[in-house]
Amino acid sequence: MGVIGESVDRTDAIGKVTGRYQYATDLKLAGMLRGRALRSPLAYARIAALDVERARRLPGVRAVVTGKDVPYLYGSTVKDRPFLAVDVVRFAGEPVAAVAAVDEDTAQEALDLIRVDYEPLEPLLDPERAMEAGASLLHPDLGKYKHSYAARPLAGTNICSHFQLRRGDVEEGFAEADDVFEDTFRTRPVQHAALEPHVAVAQVDGFSGRITVWVNSVSPFISRTELADALGVPMDRIRVIVPGVGGSFGGKMYLKQEPLAVALAMFAGNRPVRVASDREEEFTAQVVRGGTLTRLKTGVRRDGTIVARQVTTVWDTGAYADCGPRIARNSGHTSAGPYRIPNLRIDGYTVYTNKIVAGAYRGYGVTEVTWAYETQMDMIAERLGIDRLELRRRNILREGDAGATGQPVVAVGLGESLDRAAGAIAWGRESGPGRGKGVACTHKATGAPSMSSAVIKVNEDGSVVLLSSTVEQGQGSDTVLRQMVADELGVPLDRVTVTAPDTDYTPFDSSTTSSRSTFHMGNAVRLAVQDIRGQLRELNLPGDLSLREAIARQYGARGGTLIGRGLFRPDAAPMDPETAQTDKVTPFWMYAAQAAEVEVDLETGRVEVRRLAAAHDVGRAINPLTALQQIEGALVMGLGSALYEEMRVGPDGRLQNANLHDYKLPTALDVPGLEPMTVEQPHPDGPYGAKGVGEPGLAPTAPAIANAVAAATGIRFTDLPITAERLYLALKRRGAAEPHGEKRGD
Amino acid sequence: MGVIGESVDRTDAIGKVTGRYQYATDLKLAGMLRGRALRSPLAYARIAALDVERARRLPGVRAVVTGKDVPYLYGSTVKDRPFLAVDVVRFAGEPVAAVAAVDEDTAQEALDLIRVDYEPLEPLLDPERAMEAGASLLHPDLGKYKHSYAARPLAGTNICSHFQLRRGDVEEGFAEADDVFEDTFRTRPVQHAALEPHVAVAQVDGFSGRITVWVNSVSPFISRTELADALGVPMDRIRVIVPGVGGSFGGKMYLKQEPLAVALAMFAGNRPVRVASDREEEFTAQVVRGGTLTRLKTGVRRDGTIVARQVTTVWDTGAYADCGPRIARNSGHTSAGPYRIPNLRIDGYTVYTNKIVAGAYRGYGVTEVTWAYETQMDMIAERLGIDRLELRRRNILREGDAGATGQPVVAVGLGESLDRAAGAIAWGRESGPGRGKGVACTHKATGAPSMSSAVIKVNEDGSVVLLSSTVEQGQGSDTVLRQMVADELGVPLDRVTVTAPDTDYTPFDSSTTSSRSTFHMGNAVRLAVQDIRGQLRELNLPGDLSLREAIARQYGARGGTLIGRGLFRPDAAPMDPETAQTDKVTPFWMYAAQAAEVEVDLETGRVEVRRLAAAHDVGRAINPLTALQQIEGALVMGLGSALYEEMRVGPDGRLQNANLHDYKLPTALDVPGLEPMTVEQPHPDGPYGAKGVGEPGLAPTAPAIANAVAAATGIRFTDLPITAERLYLALKRRGAAEPHGEKRGD
Repeated sequence: MGVIGESVDRTDAIGKVTGRYQYATDLKLAGMLRGRALRSPLAYARIAALDVERARRLPGVRAVVTGKDVPYLYGSTVKDRPFLAVDVVRFAGEPVAAVAAVDEDTAQEALDLIRVDYEPLEPLLDPERAMEAGASLLHPDLGKYKHSYAARPLAGTNICSHFQLRRGDVEEGFAEADDVFEDTFRTRPVQHAALEPHVAVAQVDGFSGRITVWVNSVSPFISRTELADALGVPMDRIRVIVPGVGGSFGGKMYLKQEPLAVALAMFAGNRPVRVASDREEEFTAQVVRGGTLTRLKTGVRRDGTIVARQVTTVWDTGAYADCGPRIARNSGHTSAGPYRIPNLRIDGYTVYTNKIVAGAYRGYGVTEVTWAYETQMDMIAERLGIDRLELRRRNILREGDAGATGQPVVAVGLGESLDRAAGAIAWGRESGPGRGKGVACTHKATGAPSMSSAVIKVNEDGSVVLLSSTVEQGQGSDTVLRQMVADELGVPLDRVTVTAPDTDYTPFDSSTTSSRSTFHMGNAVRLAVQDIRGQLRELNLPGDLSLREAIARQYGARGGTLIGRGLFRPDAAPMDPETAQTDKVTPFWMYAAQAAEVEVDLETGRVEVRRLAAAHDVGRAINPLTALQQIEGALVMGLGSALYEEMRVGPDGRLQNANLHDYKLPTALDVPGLEPMTVEQPHPDGPYGAKGVGEPGLAPTAPAIANAVAAATGIRFTDLPITAERLYLALKRRGAAEPHGEKRGD
Repeated sequence: MGVIGESVDRTDAIGKVTGRYQYATDLKLAGMLRGRALRSPLAYARIAALDVERARRLPGVRAVVTGKDVPYLYGSTVKDRPFLAVDVVRFAGEPVAAVAAVDEDTAQEALDLIRVDYEPLEPLLDPERAMEAGASLLHPDLGKYKHSYAARPLAGTNICSHFQLRRGDVEEGFAEADDVFEDTFRTRPVQHAALEPHVAVAQVDGFSGRITVWVNSVSPFISRTELADALGVPMDRIRVIVPGVGGSFGGKMYLKQEPLAVALAMFAGNRPVRVASDREEEFTAQVVRGGTLTRLKTGVRRDGTIVARQVTTVWDTGAYADCGPRIARNSGHTSAGPYRIPNLRIDGYTVYTNKIVAGAYRGYGVTEVTWAYETQMDMIAERLGIDRLELRRRNILREGDAGATGQPVVAVGLGESLDRAAGAIAWGRESGPGRGKGVACTHKATGAPSMSSAVIKVNEDGSVVLLSSTVEQGQGSDTVLRQMVADELGVPLDRVTVTAPDTDYTPFDSSTTSSRSTFHMGNAVRLAVQDIRGQLRELNLPGDLSLREAIARQYGARGGTLIGRGLFRPDAAPMDPETAQTDKVTPFWMYAAQAAEVEVDLETGRVEVRRLAAAHDVGRAINPLTALQQIEGALVMGLGSALYEEMRVGPDGRLQNANLHDYKLPTALDVPGLEPMTVEQPHPDGPYGAKGVGEPGLAPTAPAIANAVAAATGIRFTDLPITAERLYLALKRRGAAEPHGEKRGD
């Protein structure tokens, strides 16, 4: 039908630009109560006394809950987190009590009537200190918590998971090397800053006890599983419905606002209870991308060949594990970089501290380790005197090479991506004064195992409904899935409707994360269409009938339908937990390269990114424009964490810039000329060859920019963000030591 | 699992007895407006002027519509009905204008501001007169209306459909007969009187233009099709959701409240509009079982063998066709009775009059013709001097006999039903003075062609969701379908959830009518489970795994699902439109017999039904208690139309008893000892052998009672209901002519 590879209009475009699109935050239900939480002002304290009686008596209050009313633990990897704090608070922002009332004002007034006596404890804020023997234990019960296969908790420590990968012999590798580089890199906590805050509405049916949750989650089935696990009820007792989602970037994955809403609804007598964060709560109480520290030791030959690499990353997961252990694991598979390295030793430690919980953030840990290895690549190139692009070319994974987990890579469009990104900024040609160029690349695997399923209903008039639990969150999935349905069935795009996810009604999907929807749900759609075609064949209708004609022939005047189901679950191979070696770590890898040219104001330290080119191997762009938009949006996020964004935690553990004024996001004026490009190295298992595109876009951005800054100024940053202030101070320090000594790169 | 054939608790029981069950009428949506219609007080008139301007200007009014704003025609068989009257009103109660306002009072106030000038026309109330040449034409455009295959309109007349069935040679048959009986029978219009009135809420999305309708309909897919047809939009532009339904009995089938709600929503700017009938509107403006007149000519041999029968039924369909033509057709297939008759001539005329629209009513025309043929059977037996039960036994259809359409009958449990019903009232034993016994039987086909489809989702924990569009309306379908899913999959009943119908999300089902759900949806469920089992086989899991174990083995920690789809559409054969002969008129027939013993107060004419036994061949009772409850509820309805119920239309065409005070329904005190029984003659194509049970229950009730009254008093009624007043007058008339001459039957 020619609809694949076409930049058709986005399904959600008109609704979004006209303001009529319905987000979860717009949901109004009859009789809906408003819930608000009283949150701990302290990062770490014992709750000595908690008195909610005055709040309960306030007219208009319908429910007041504390942790003891809902003694359930949840957590996607380690079940370490109470619905509300019980006896102890572990971060500033943790809910201590919650109120449902007839309106927000009454709820807030009720919160003001709650008395809490805290006994402050010394907060543990530095994850390296938290790992030390003798550190106070934030979770003395760590050894008793239930946990998933993705976590390997070390009981009696603050390490809620230790991931390790072993390949070859790293010590032998270092011994072989002509040179060994040891560096430490950091990233700071950053905010997703989705425009729509976290909202959940929960209702407990007074008749059946069934719980319905409306939530702007990108993982409704995980929410169902986690709630069922926590409450100890079968999954059929819980229904999760996803209204429109106004941006997630990973922040709306796993349980977030649901436990508070459900806790209140359980005591609100059949009425729906809405709990929504204000912006301050988005900063202090939901989820962040946690800070990291990565020690990177790399052994190289004189010609630049990398022979061994040791990576140790400390992941500051905050007060609760959330998906921290899984981030360390999935990111661990990638943290040697997209390079052919025979000897590897990778360790990831996910560590509790008294900070806001860290969780998924677009890239799922890959961005942080890319910052480390792509910065060090330039340091290696510099010391060895090899062109920085050339050094990468010499080491990158090529078709059939074994990756870090042993699985050979296929459909590797990295070389082309590097060449195109670098070419776009005229790599090799001299920059002007105060200017520099940088390049960086990355790879990312989609998480595994995971599953997508789709049901396709063909109506009597040949119009089609796709039942899918993929969550449109701004990334364009509804559009791309409709394109694939229309193409596979041969029906006009306009006649394809995609339903919103609802765990009762729509088929299972692991989650809309990990850049997986086009690949996984696309394959499920194709299988569902195959199922329909098989049924049509059994009907022995003339072969040249269009779908509409076949339906009319079969179902005539009285109506009828065809239904196809497609279940896609890529093969997975077992993984050795000691070495992370496996025949199949992921169904597909994504590759991306970016190149930046910057101009640095040497007086003020201000970095102006003049060009930012990104070449991403997407396998096949089902909708080229939305693919480019995905890359573009990621570049802006990458730019933000490269130059501006940082959640500043004070010595008391409290966030010092919990608002969009003091927390600096790039504005439209800060965004340079972006040059997103797609590279199409078709994946043999992808629908039409497609891979994913959502996440890798921001991983190379910070190192590409930092490498360009280093080229422009000779100043090497190993910590982010490169604010004007930091660069100014560095220039000043360097100027004092070595006046006018800045180097210039290519 | 042993769950089939068990009287497990009804899924909806606790919710309904505690008042927590959510019916459509309970639905509250944020921002919901209230719609009300201005209805014609005249049965037939031209609209000379219509002025809504003052209503429009009333504060709080959000939309005012007239027929000219929504110039669409709808109708399930003949597209003859406007959303609101245009230029002419055809029955007292027809909507002329409608208003949506912020509350009911404002809407009502606005209606009072609307001025309509009517030019009254002489109403056509008698369908026989309406059939005469020269009668004024209520629908001069009848020849231009679109219509379905189920209607055969006669343009230039008031006959919106003529059904005919021809078999053998009826004139030869009468010539062969020893005796020929010619009688005329009537039934009066009756009300469904569901406790929950008709409610629809409609919303037109301001972004996409999609129309969503929440309606207590038992045929949401028909509503979607009809709305799409009327509005000229593809089906994917319309979504119909069915919240809980508080009784239908056929009255909530096809479009009812939807057109008004949609018309208002189209002008209400994105806000949902609720339109609900009050009780008076239920009587005057929705739908009734129309009155009928049946001329029955039957030729019999001396031994009682029926050799020929001619049936002519006039169906008073009121102002619009609704499903009248289909009723005449489906009922026409049955109106020779469940008897072996070689020569048949059946005609059904569906005729327009200036009355409220007649539509589907539990039994779909079978009750009315059963009244005719089962009354005449007693008249025949009496004149031939054959025991009335014996006469039936000699003529009933037996296994393999050809029915009226030529299709041989299978799984015929009629003989056993007759014997058990008669046995329950000690047939043949003398009744006391003023007492009499009667028996009657019936058969009914489920409508065809029709289709059911089901999707079954198995969750990661082995709990199961059945997606089905079968509408629970009090008949117990949710319970029975859950039983079948649990049995087929081998999971506990408690772990099976059934979803509410939603045309976007749940798979196609023709409608929840025609006693078809257990059979059709049951088969669809079984096919869906077969689909799941096939997928499990392909996985090559060990064969002795339970479903839960298989799921765990396959989907492990990260979740996953199995999905099965089942599409059931029984074979249908073409039907000759001139003779209604076909190899397959229906996938199954239902058989029932009832026996009544009455005591008549000869002074007052009051009939007391002392015993009412009903034996129904249900094939297999999936849930025996709910099957018996279905029969029991039908008996009470049958009792009502036998003795009490009649909508009285005055000479001006207006209803004279449009409320539950003046319209007499049987109360608990009027209900005799009921003896419902199931007979199980398994159907080879039914799930577990099941047939249907919903409809036939009231068809034999009136003739069984009337036959008992005749036995007790010698007075033969050919018209319903047998009110005390009518019987008193008849006794008085007969007493004047022939004092104390009442006969007594067995």
